Amino acid sequence: MTEKRPMGQSRTIQTKLVLPPDTNHLQTIFGGHVLSYIDEIAAITAMKHAHTAVVTASIDSVDFLSSARVGDVLELEAIVSSTGRSSMEVFVKVHSMNLLTGVTKLTTESFLTMVAMDENNKSTPVPGVFPETEVETRLFETAVARREHRKLRNELKH
Amino acid sequence: MTEKRPMGQSRTIQTKLVLPPDTNHLQTIFGGHVLSYIDEIAAITAMKHAHTAVVTASIDSVDFLSSARVGDVLELEAIVSSTGRSSMEVFVKVHSMNLLTGVTKLTTESFLTMVAMDENNKSTPVPGVFPETEVETRLFETAVARREHRKLRNELKH
Amino acid sequence: MTEKRPMGQSRTIQTKLVLPPDTNHLQTIFGGHVLSYIDEIAAITAMKHAHTAVVTASIDSVDFLSSARVGDVLELEAIVSSTGRSSMEVFVKVHSMNLLTGVTKLTTESFLTMVAMDENNKSTPVPGVFPETEVETRLFETAVARREHRKLRNELKH
Amino acid sequence: MTEKRPMGQSRTIQTKLVLPPDTNHLQTIFGGHVLSYIDEIAAITAMKHAHTAVVTASIDSVDFLSSARVGDVLELEAIVSSTGRSSMEVFVKVHSMNLLTGVTKLTTESFLTMVAMDENNKSTPVPGVFPETEVETRLFETAVARREHRKLRNELKH
Amino acid sequence: MTEKRPMGQSRTIQTKLVLPPDTNHLQTIFGGHVLSYIDEIAAITAMKHAHTAVVTASIDSVDFLSSARVGDVLELEAIVSSTGRSSMEVFVKVHSMNLLTGVTKLTTESFLTMVAMDENNKSTPVPGVFPETEVETRLFETAVARREHRKLRNELKH
Amino acid sequence: MTEKRPMGQSRTIQTKLVLPPDTNHLQTIFGGHVLSYIDEIAAITAMKHAHTAVVTASIDSVDFLSSARVGDVLELEAIVSSTGRSSMEVFVKVHSMNLLTGVTKLTTESFLTMVAMDENNKSTPVPGVFPETEVETRLFETAVARREHRKLRNELKH
Ligand SMILES: CC(C)(COP(=O)(O)OP(=O)(O)OC[C@H]1O[C@@H](n2cnc3c(N)ncnc32)[C@H](O)[C@@H]1OP(=O)(O)O)[C@@H](O)C(=O)NCCC(=O)NCCS
Ligand SMILES: CC(C)(COP(=O)(O)OP(=O)(O)OC[C@H]1O[C@@H](n2cnc3c(N)ncnc32)[C@H](O)[C@@H]1OP(=O)(O)O)[C@@H](O)C(=O)NCCC(=O)NCCS
Ligand SMILES: CC(C)(COP(=O)(O)OP(=O)(O)OC[C@H]1O[C@@H](n2cnc3c(N)ncnc32)[C@H](O)[C@@H]1OP(=O)(O)O)[C@@H](O)C(=O)NCCC(=O)NCCS
Ligand SMILES: CC(C)(COP(=O)(O)OP(=O)(O)OC[C@H]1O[C@@H](n2cnc3c(N)ncnc32)[C@H](O)[C@@H]1OP(=O)(O)O)[C@@H](O)C(=O)NCCC(=O)NCCS
Repeated sequence: MTEKRPMGQSRTIQTKLVLPPDTNHLQTIFGGHVLSYIDEIAAITAMKHAHTAVVTASIDSVDFLSSARVGDVLELEAIVSSTGRSSMEVFVKVHSMNLLTGVTKLTTESFLTMVAMDENNKSTPVPGVFPETEVETRLFETAVARREHRKLRNELKH
Repeated sequence: MTEKRPMGQSRTIQTKLVLPPDTNHLQTIFGGHVLSYIDEIAAITAMKHAHTAVVTASIDSVDFLSSARVGDVLELEAIVSSTGRSSMEVFVKVHSMNLLTGVTKLTTESFLTMVAMDENNKSTPVPGVFPETEVETRLFETAVARREHRKLRNELKH
Repeated sequence: MTEKRPMGQSRTIQTKLVLPPDTNHLQTIFGGHVLSYIDEIAAITAMKHAHTAVVTASIDSVDFLSSARVGDVLELEAIVSSTGRSSMEVFVKVHSMNLLTGVTKLTTESFLTMVAMDENNKSTPVPGVFPETEVETRLFETAVARREHRKLRNELKH
Repeated sequence: MTEKRPMGQSRTIQTKLVLPPDTNHLQTIFGGHVLSYIDEIAAITAMKHAHTAVVTASIDSVDFLSSARVGDVLELEAIVSSTGRSSMEVFVKVHSMNLLTGVTKLTTESFLTMVAMDENNKSTPVPGVFPETEVETRLFETAVARREHRKLRNELKH
Repeated sequence: MTEKRPMGQSRTIQTKLVLPPDTNHLQTIFGGHVLSYIDEIAAITAMKHAHTAVVTASIDSVDFLSSARVGDVLELEAIVSSTGRSSMEVFVKVHSMNLLTGVTKLTTESFLTMVAMDENNKSTPVPGVFPETEVETRLFETAVARREHRKLRNELKH
Repeated sequence: MTEKRPMGQSRTIQTKLVLPPDTNHLQTIFGGHVLSYIDEIAAITAMKHAHTAVVTASIDSVDFLSSARVGDVLELEAIVSSTGRSSMEVFVKVHSMNLLTGVTKLTTESFLTMVAMDENNKSTPVPGVFPETEVETRLFETAVARREHRKLRNELKH
């Protein structure tokens, strides 16, 4: 496998204008659209790190803390926070911004597990990551605990 | 508040043909599209129960157990599995079916919390549910444990 | 050719939330969107029966008896109602439901002819169907008359 | 009601490039997409004549005579072929053209009934039409027979 | 290379109904949607002339003179106005029409350069064009000046 | 009018995964899709600066220097480069990145003029901008020449 890459190299930013077809009767965005944006940016981020195609293995629980309305902007930021053999944990943060007032609120934070796939649809190894900033270091070091938690969660299901 | 309604009354079924724009390089569906379908059916199911508009408060962790490819069909089934004051827990099951072979596989199962909203975008009470079949009863009775788990999960975050 | 299959095995259900982009100035759904949903469910239904790809050969006349508005739900149900060598007649029923009042109305009923296609884009034989319920039997037995009517209609055109 | 308008004034032309998401496994366009395009051009044509919003009351049976593939172009042409009090019969012709060879084929022809609607969602009178060319005259004069046929068809249903 | 073709043979017409998802808060259409329609009709027009696939090499500056709102119709008309070895200049004119009043306004005019591409993604020769009407002749004869201007513009950039 | 704002405050980043429906036969993205993305990011950037709704008044000529294919990523970056009374010049840069090789190429650069609009659809004043970096200063100082060029261009048209 190739050598480790800096976490920051995978960092990806998205800016989405909330349009009428994205919203319900109350003119607030569907949770499903936000989930779809989260998965899309996680896939781009993981591909930027792994230089292969990827699939989504799982997404940790997501709480929607605040809403976004028609005309607001969603700002998504994602980074590969840790790696396994072929899997990558991706951290995604979503803010909504009211463009008329400039006020920004946290909408949600989420961790996804993406898996690198080769041409034959088999999982394939990925380079490791190393943190360079304080925030990255915290994300990187808490990854072990999150992985344990995910294992436990899956055992409980069976 | 009005009297309780049978769980089965909210049951909703969806059948989605997987088309090229839903898929990545490997011709497998994006996880984000499946998440979006899960949220859509959960919203319809909750609206059928509550007779109000609803928003997604949270989605429990989702594991993607098998994939779906262009030309497959996704079959989603959803039911309100328990209720709080204004919140409803919705259970969603997703199968993928290969139309050429007829083989069906479980793609994922998921629980979401939907909240009933009134005209002024405030949470509003919903009727309760009661189970009528064995499967419904099991879903209904395990809801308390899931709610506890969610509370714990949120406390851990803070 | 393989043996006959029960009609009910092809039964397919769809639930569509009517969103703003589906509607005109009067906020009622475009007929063309309903026609597109009818064709989509007919294709899935026919593929579930034939286990091949299919194309739409024709759709019988469609009358739109009632409308659906933003926030309503369209419920479609389809079944293979009879078969020829490579063609299948599919019956589709569409109801609209107002989610806030729970009131349901018939929007339209329609018959389509779908044709099974092999890899080389040639029509290919399909298994027969047999009815199991009273409703299915009526649909199945009236198919001959509808086929006669379609032949007549095409002769008149030339 | 206002005076009659020439049929030709409502004539509308559409050109649609067939793209991958419009097609099935065989790379041929879904019938439902063609139906949706037919309804869209019929609505524009009727609105150009009536200067009001319109809804689709019915579409006569449609036979798909030839298919269109990714990269082909669909050319639609529509005209108001006759009028009632509030209803308009619209004739739509669809050709597909292979852009690489220049070969053009008839895909389908169809008649739709569109109804003019006022602000309160009630049917509202429309101006009459008069034909100016030979083709238009034939369309105009055969309208009575088609209307009779539609009435008969609806009575048979009940 | 094959002989010249009449300009008029490439002429293409489009009619687009402006729907809610195409518009911003003020219910006026996004400039980007109009640009996308302009590019789409230019590609169809160039393919009708060249009988090959094409790519967009450039678009001259576009001024949006008037807007279009939900329920209006955009009418686009395009023609190949001159040719190089592998490049075609396409002229596109866009009008918006208010369907309720019948009033039509010029939205914009634009010139694009499309390049014919062969199977291997290399530029490939196209037939010439000759004008047949006065308007076509003016477009054809002023093409040389526009080409000069484009060359100058590109040199200035470097 | 309010005081000047730093140019960098309006900076916006977009990352778009190129999917099959965005592309032509050669699997390269349609120019119209890139134009539409350019307009969308320019609108968000201008709204972030002006805190009002905006419309696109014009886009300068765009040359597409290199293409993007299915699975590539388009990275767009935009900034308000200068202001008038109600108009803002926005500079947009587009790169395409091959995710498998990591190679990045310039696709195009473009300047647009966006106009701030009030509730009544009238143009409304915007704050000025001041540059803080060398690159921003160059963009800011060359704006006068571009404005002159635009005026000239429009006069030549009449
Ligand atoms: C969900 C939301 C309405 C809750 O707001 P709130 O101020 O906590 O409202 P309330 O205190 O009235 O709580 C309403 C219910 O939501 C439940 N709830 C709140 N947050 C929750 C979460 N993260 N997970 C599960 N349930 C939650 C509460 O327990 C309560 O349930 P109950 O009435 O059955 O006892 C609010 O957080 C919100 O608007 N979030 C955004 C929703 C949205 O737009 N989602 C789509 C994409 S962003
Ligand atoms: C079409 C519709 C408005 C007719 O309602 P109605 O109560 O019969 O209205 P009216 O009696 O005023 O009839 C209006 C006209 O429609 C015509 N009409 C009604 N049903 C029709 C049908 N199935 N086929 C053809 N014409 C029909 C009537 O003959 C009458 O024509 P005329 O005014 O030229 O004499 C009503 O059935 C409706 O709203 N349907 C749904 C339309 C829709 O939303 N379609 C899109 C997808 S569901
Ligand atoms: C357009 C493109 C094929 C030109 O490539 P090239 O290596 O310059 O090719 P050639 O030298 O064979 O030139 C082909 C023609 O394009 C013309 N051309 C090239 N760049 C041009 C530009 N910016 N504006 C106008 N015409 C241009 C050339 O003048 C030549 O015309 P001619 O054959 O009539 O004399 C290439 O720049 C490209 O692939 N760009 C991306 C196109 C695209 O995918 N657009 C969609 C969105 S990114
Ligand atoms: C852009 C538009 C609002 C300008 O209208 P107007 O009556 O000229 O308005 P004003 O005279 O108040 O001018 C407003 C500003 O726009 C600028 N402007 C007008 N036309 C312009 C053009 N073609 N290119 C660049 N700037 C232009 C003016 O210079 C002025 O700038 P300033 O306030 O910084 O000095 C008007 O032409 C319009 O609505 N166009 C359609 C916009 C649209 O909907 N675009 C999307 C798709 S059609």
